[in-house]
Amino acid sequence: MTQVLKARAGIITEEMEAVAADENLDVEFIRRGIAEGKIVIPRNKVRKEFKYCGIGEGLRIKVNALIGTSSDRDDMEMEARKLAIAEEAGCDSFMDLSTGKDIDGMRKQSLSLAHVAVGSTMIYQAGIEAIAKYGSVVNMREEDIFEVIERQAADGLDFMAIHCALNMDVIKRMQATGRVTDVVSRGGAFLTGWMLHNQKENPLYEKFDRVLEILKAYDVTLSLGDAIRPGSIADSLDGAQLQGMIIQGELTRRAQEAGVQVMVEGPGHVPLNHVDATMRVQKRLCNNAPYYILGTLATDVTPGYDHISGAIGGALIGACGADFLCYLTPAEHLGLPTEEDVKTGVITTRMAAHIADIAKGNKQAWARDLEMAKARVALNLDRQIKAALYPEQLKAAAATAGDDHGCVVCGTGCTAQVAAEYFGIG
Amino acid sequence: MTQVLKARAGIITEEMEAVAADENLDVEFIRRGIAEGKIVIPRNKVRKEFKYCGIGEGLRIKVNALIGTSSDRDDMEMEARKLAIAEEAGCDSFMDLSTGKDIDGMRKQSLSLAHVAVGSTMIYQAGIEAIAKYGSVVNMREEDIFEVIERQAADGLDFMAIHCALNMDVIKRMQATGRVTDVVSRGGAFLTGWMLHNQKENPLYEKFDRVLEILKAYDVTLSLGDAIRPGSIADSLDGAQLQGMIIQGELTRRAQEAGVQVMVEGPGHVPLNHVDATMRVQKRLCNNAPYYILGTLATDVTPGYDHISGAIGGALIGACGADFLCYLTPAEHLGLPTEEDVKTGVITTRMAAHIADIAKGNKQAWARDLEMAKARVALNLDRQIKAALYPEQLKAAAATAGDDHGCVVCGTGCTAQVAAEYFGIG
Repeated sequence: MTQVLKARAGIITEEMEAVAADENLDVEFIRRGIAEGKIVIPRNKVRKEFKYCGIGEGLRIKVNALIGTSSDRDDMEMEARKLAIAEEAGCDSFMDLSTGKDIDGMRKQSLSLAHVAVGSTMIYQAGIEAIAKYGSVVNMREEDIFEVIERQAADGLDFMAIHCALNMDVIKRMQATGRVTDVVSRGGAFLTGWMLHNQKENPLYEKFDRVLEILKAYDVTLSLGDAIRPGSIADSLDGAQLQGMIIQGELTRRAQEAGVQVMVEGPGHVPLNHVDATMRVQKRLCNNAPYYILGTLATDVTPGYDHISGAIGGALIGACGADFLCYLTPAEHLGLPTEEDVKTGVITTRMAAHIADIAKGNKQAWARDLEMAKARVALNLDRQIKAALYPEQLKAAAATAGDDHGCVVCGTGCTAQVAAEYFGIG
Repeated sequence: MTQVLKARAGIITEEMEAVAADENLDVEFIRRGIAEGKIVIPRNKVRKEFKYCGIGEGLRIKVNALIGTSSDRDDMEMEARKLAIAEEAGCDSFMDLSTGKDIDGMRKQSLSLAHVAVGSTMIYQAGIEAIAKYGSVVNMREEDIFEVIERQAADGLDFMAIHCALNMDVIKRMQATGRVTDVVSRGGAFLTGWMLHNQKENPLYEKFDRVLEILKAYDVTLSLGDAIRPGSIADSLDGAQLQGMIIQGELTRRAQEAGVQVMVEGPGHVPLNHVDATMRVQKRLCNNAPYYILGTLATDVTPGYDHISGAIGGALIGACGADFLCYLTPAEHLGLPTEEDVKTGVITTRMAAHIADIAKGNKQAWARDLEMAKARVALNLDRQIKAALYPEQLKAAAATAGDDHGCVVCGTGCTAQVAAEYFGIG
């Protein structure tokens, strides 16, 4: 029995207990959320216990990191270090997007090292193997695709991005709409190329029940891939994107009915004035399933700083109801992220998630901010360090400042001292 | 005659011409905006020509940097370097907040080096001089305050933050509200201390007409200081803040009537769900005068990363109608910014301003994003570099990538190549 089916049968699982404790919420709230499809807790049934994360309505927003080898940098040890850095910086899950030589080996390494939920984008492996075997993605065979899903699920992946919602109707709408940037999803590009070359429907759409069967057997959470997300500000909320969301909505309901946990992938490049509408349409079409955001880039023109642009868009879409933010690193649009980039990406995205939690009135988030505010008024540096999301730099400043509150901004006439004297504080 | 009075008389000034050209707008739109108080172009009549910036409704959002000596780091050469760095990174104006030994000398240096509008927070100098002369801010004399305004105006400052809207009613409301963080504005703390100690009304409020007279004589733009902005998330939109905004609104109208250009200072720590309301209330109360934002910090718990938190809040409040963003650097809440911090602060804040311009549909901003999107589809790196807000890192990545589009993310099965092959692009 999968998590969803247990939740519907009224059974409380260890995953629900752990998430309820972590969120300081009633476990019945978690169970009901899973039963209704509003919450997922990714966990493959073959994986041993790890730090489960609940994703969905009423919970803190979670953060996903990305690692993975590629043909240009095929260094499994570096990826292991990145994984450790991402977990240390506070990611709630990560995806292994490897496309290097030993994809199976990398996945096994990732699963053996991880303390959090692990995901993949399965079509990468299918595509890369097709290129190796047949010379091109377009020669990939249907059976190969399903075999990769089975292989990855059997290894223990907790969630899997699968581009089932890309069908011929969506491609037609894209062609009719006339986009600036047709397809920026790599998995989406593989499949679109395959579909157009072979003039055949996407097997992941056509044989969606077969996908669900495999996922159900291992209790893998489906992450409904967004092959058609806007790759530039100008394409946001166009006919192609909305067509894709309509299909995502249909498949979400089928997955929910089949007893498979499901979340929905979204955004890309979105101007801030489209964020709220994007979010409302997704929740409406996709039966309130969790929305997993692949960076809400709020402008096209900031290569090198896209982690900040993504945090701006991410915080706003989180405040509007998004449940799960995939990180963006400073390397976005430039190249492969370094270890430092991975750390920066998790930090920046986790800040965005916290800021959104504050906007939504999450009690744990508010308690943390209030404690920081009070610690500042009390000029209590130890308490400030404990309350800080990332205290590293506060610690460093405190060490060099040499006064009692670790701040040298004012010098003569310090605001906090004036305040303490005249408002009877401190 | 001041700019406003000229605008009302139907006179087109060189400042209006320059701003209209810079914004690609009709000069009559600018003139009307100034006449109605919706737009300001700070320029002291004693200053020689510089790069004027228009601030207000219908214009691109502008960015202000901060420099200044202090008792803890009194290095005028470093501040000169910071000024150059801030201008190089694209600030539209800066404020000299010096509180070191030679405040007059620093101001003269700043004005002689600047190519943009220059501002100050005048009460700093009055307060620091009072501490030197009388041993404490609370012994500051009324005449000293007005003398400093006159001295700074005569030197050529284009805009001046003056805390006229802090009166006894506002302090009463603060005491009645029971804030977590009473006063975080340094100028506000000076004046609150003075008012409570002497049990006297704020001279800048009581003798507001005298303030206006001096500003009018030099055509200095008044920046109505926000002494009571929320210093923690928990205090946002409380009675004290709103009381302060009500008084700001009254004084804004009086300044407008007197023919003095005026903008209004605001925010501080604001949860994202309060941003829109804050903005609407300000525009309503302050007769649509430009809103100058001192960092919309969207959480209290990110010392070391507050430039990003401020960019998140700044982008959203900009999208909601704020006109002018003061930068935040990574040193906020930690200490004095380094030269690197100044650069980071301008870059991050300018990104927020651009993202807000995109959300508001600014045509210049949209044209830039569209050019970047098209340059990416065309794999044209030179065009991408030209379109980038800050191309430094894109150039560096391009130099090391060694292929024709400066991106090594995908390696085998590059999305752009698949797209080019199957969608007939490139």
